[in-house]
Amino acid sequence: MKAIVTVMLKHGVLDPQGKAIGHALQNLGFEGVGEVRAGKVIELDLAEHDPARARAQAEEMARKLLANAVIEGYRVEVLT
Amino acid sequence: MKAIVTVMLKHGVLDPQGKAIGHALQNLGFEGVGEVRAGKVIELDLAEHDPARARAQAEEMARKLLANAVIEGYRVEVLT
Repeated sequence: MKAIVTVMLKHGVLDPQGKAIGHALQNLGFEGVGEVRAGKVIELDLAEHDPARARAQAEEMARKLLANAVIEGYRVEVLT
Repeated sequence: MKAIVTVMLKHGVLDPQGKAIGHALQNLGFEGVGEVRAGKVIELDLAEHDPARARAQAEEMARKLLANAVIEGYRVEVLT
């Protein structure tokens, strides 16, 4: 079973990578680009076959390793 | 309109960050973890209000800046 964990900086935390991407897009001539935020995505192949347990496992992984809870939030998506 | 661009290494391209995360998860005691792949996600606030045009704009951004087409693939999701 596949789980996708997306980790983003919390709103209010400065995101210099997102800002740099936004400036680069403007420099390339893209117009109408507002806020840009950059984050990480981790795709996990899990042996677990139960969607609820796979989600719980991925959320525990996010809490313990993948996200820094002080400055980052995460969301988990389980592909069935 | 919000567009989310997810950039992942193509299959077959070595992903050392994903491998490191997989090993760290095993060391933390997580079992049944198969392949782990790490990528980037970029959330864009676009002034464009038409979903099709917003998607086309985000795909052009991915091709021109956000993804390295030699080793990376991307997918675009437009939130309506």
